Amino acid sequence: MLTVDGDRLWERLMEMAQIGGTSQGGVCRVALTNEDRDGRNLFVRWCADIGCTVEVDQMGNIFARRPGENNDAPAIMIGSHLDSQPTGGKFDGVLGVLAGFEVLETLNDHAISTSVPIELVSWTNEEGARFSPAMIASGVFSGNFTLDYAYSRTDKQGRTLGGELDRIGYKGALKVGDRPYRATFELHIEQGPILEAEQKSVGIVTGVQGIRWYDLTLTGQETHAGPSPMRYRRDPMMLASKILPLVYGIAETYQPEARVTIGYIDAMPGVRNTVPGSLTIAIDLRHPDAETLANMDSDLKGIVRELNGEHEVATELEEVWHSPPVKFASECVDAVRNATEICQVSAKEIVSGAGHDAVNIAKVAPTSMIFIPCKDGLSHNEQESIKQEDAIHGANVLLNAVLQIASSNKVSEGIISSNA
Amino acid sequence: MLTVDGDRLWERLMEMAQIGGTSQGGVCRVALTNEDRDGRNLFVRWCADIGCTVEVDQMGNIFARRPGENNDAPAIMIGSHLDSQPTGGKFDGVLGVLAGFEVLETLNDHAISTSVPIELVSWTNEEGARFSPAMIASGVFSGNFTLDYAYSRTDKQGRTLGGELDRIGYKGALKVGDRPYRATFELHIEQGPILEAEQKSVGIVTGVQGIRWYDLTLTGQETHAGPSPMRYRRDPMMLASKILPLVYGIAETYQPEARVTIGYIDAMPGVRNTVPGSLTIAIDLRHPDAETLANMDSDLKGIVRELNGEHEVATELEEVWHSPPVKFASECVDAVRNATEICQVSAKEIVSGAGHDAVNIAKVAPTSMIFIPCKDGLSHNEQESIKQEDAIHGANVLLNAVLQIASSNKVSEGIISSNA
Repeated sequence: MLTVDGDRLWERLMEMAQIGGTSQGGVCRVALTNEDRDGRNLFVRWCADIGCTVEVDQMGNIFARRPGENNDAPAIMIGSHLDSQPTGGKFDGVLGVLAGFEVLETLNDHAISTSVPIELVSWTNEEGARFSPAMIASGVFSGNFTLDYAYSRTDKQGRTLGGELDRIGYKGALKVGDRPYRATFELHIEQGPILEAEQKSVGIVTGVQGIRWYDLTLTGQETHAGPSPMRYRRDPMMLASKILPLVYGIAETYQPEARVTIGYIDAMPGVRNTVPGSLTIAIDLRHPDAETLANMDSDLKGIVRELNGEHEVATELEEVWHSPPVKFASECVDAVRNATEICQVSAKEIVSGAGHDAVNIAKVAPTSMIFIPCKDGLSHNEQESIKQEDAIHGANVLLNAVLQIASSNKVSEGIISSNA
Repeated sequence: MLTVDGDRLWERLMEMAQIGGTSQGGVCRVALTNEDRDGRNLFVRWCADIGCTVEVDQMGNIFARRPGENNDAPAIMIGSHLDSQPTGGKFDGVLGVLAGFEVLETLNDHAISTSVPIELVSWTNEEGARFSPAMIASGVFSGNFTLDYAYSRTDKQGRTLGGELDRIGYKGALKVGDRPYRATFELHIEQGPILEAEQKSVGIVTGVQGIRWYDLTLTGQETHAGPSPMRYRRDPMMLASKILPLVYGIAETYQPEARVTIGYIDAMPGVRNTVPGSLTIAIDLRHPDAETLANMDSDLKGIVRELNGEHEVATELEEVWHSPPVKFASECVDAVRNATEICQVSAKEIVSGAGHDAVNIAKVAPTSMIFIPCKDGLSHNEQESIKQEDAIHGANVLLNAVLQIASSNKVSEGIISSNA
């Protein structure tokens, strides 16, 4: 079994973490800032140092290519993203990029040639912390968004994504999403508590949960808290007190996989001694199975319909986003599963709850992901932490999954030959 | 029965409403602004025109005195406030001041002399819209606050109340709260729906509800909505969904007078796809009876204690304000009740849900209030509206309540004699 150099991987992770490193041990390397540029420059230099050809596309996505035996054949893509949240950690995204780099370096060390080329990618603006929406560059890659739309996105200071790409020197010439890929893999931290709780080193990611977002608006009548008897009130918060338990009840109905989150409730005018005139309740429903998610949606609509008019409060439910569940390509999931067996690491099938660039890429190429645990499930946080041994396990699984695809008989030239 | 001149009262209300008048038909005459100064100047001129002596105290409270037969005896005080909310109405406060003015003018018209002097007051900064807390000037008058405390209060631009009093020329020389009063009456719009719903013209206000304000903080663990299964969550919003119905249940237990208001719920970080790390729930409990309010407080504490630790979420309840119930002096309440009978207006005993300057004054002098209905219970709103006939009924009741106290045998000189 071929294995990566774990110390080298860890050293590179720590070196990259210094760019935008914070006093709390985290990273602030927000998309298209000078820190992002510096991180990209370091990455590009490393890629050139190991003999890769580096191309940058019109969205600033960086592709470092290690040639294969048949360079006309579609490449295998690995990678993730280098940008971070403003108070992000050292591993979210960057682990997938640098573990991918370690895969290429390991292949070099052992002078292994692969049937098809391997491309290591770093996607622009995965986090969406500065330019909304998140995963916009892989979204252009997969055809969700046009290039013009992406370029016109602005940050809070009104600077455009296109302008900032130009400014940091990463608006490339390569057309976005112009070539096909044989398969793609993204290694990432789980950003959740499951693997750690179940003491598994690797998650075999079979897909991504479907997500439905709603604004539930309850409209009553604003009135003073003092002079207004309860029986005269049209109090949306009182109605919310009846709706909330029912909404969380949806999660109970569809356990263990259903997830229901209410991130905030906005009350207008939001004054202590005023009965609110209206409320907006932000609801997030998730499930890996499209049919179950549709049932959850239907249950929510039923609750809202049922309680409309109670306390003379009007309910209105608006769906603001719907991202259907994604099932990753079985060929890629199998490759990851086999790799965990080859590497003899403790593993568990898992569905991603968060969005990733891989969700976009899955639309245009066979794709899957590999997770490793992070401490307390914590990410988007300077305290984000992983074990070095898990990083090594994850990188080894990535390496061996790539080797399996490179040797699979779906590609006629699919053999691994060692020059050693 | 002596009655006021209703058209004259209404004309003065409409004339005063032009100072700070808004395009929506409301008033913006916020405390110690130029508009407040202009309103005060008009009021002072009117008072001088009808022969009153006008004094301004150190808090800018204006006292217009109509002499009685015994000018060494404590005066009867009537009045309210001229300042408004930024988007206030034409009647909140100003009705009580100008109806009081109409009382004095009516006494003049009929050349009625009263046993004791009558002082018409306009309190500074009742609304608290610019300088917090509300009712600060009557609070200094009744000894709740020191003058230095009041002077040092700042608005959002950092200007002090003391400095602004000076600037508009209303920092007077009269010591605040230096003399006793025989009785005080405040006529005010109800700011609630009860009188209108029950088709009564006048509310005989027997007291003011007690109020307890709380911050209920629920502290769990912030986590991503996607990757975190329900069973691992420490979700304060999920706990809120259990607590809210119980908190509103307190209102049900102590109907018909108990009031429970939750004006807002602040979620941190307040992002749709993040399970909040903590919530602050603003709770307002009210009841006219101190013992019942104590039971409501005890019930709330019991709920919070009972649910502490559920979903591994910690509960913490902080009482941020407590204003005990006020029972108005029976002598003054009786005078109002008798006046409603003399005037033959439909009336109902009512407890004020909102705070008023009268609540402060009740600590240092026999006090009660008179309410009249406002349309839809709406106030602190440019749409605030009353019927002219109700304003006239209210002013007549005020006039006749004053006459009763002025003729009561508690004051040895208490006779009404007409010079006519």
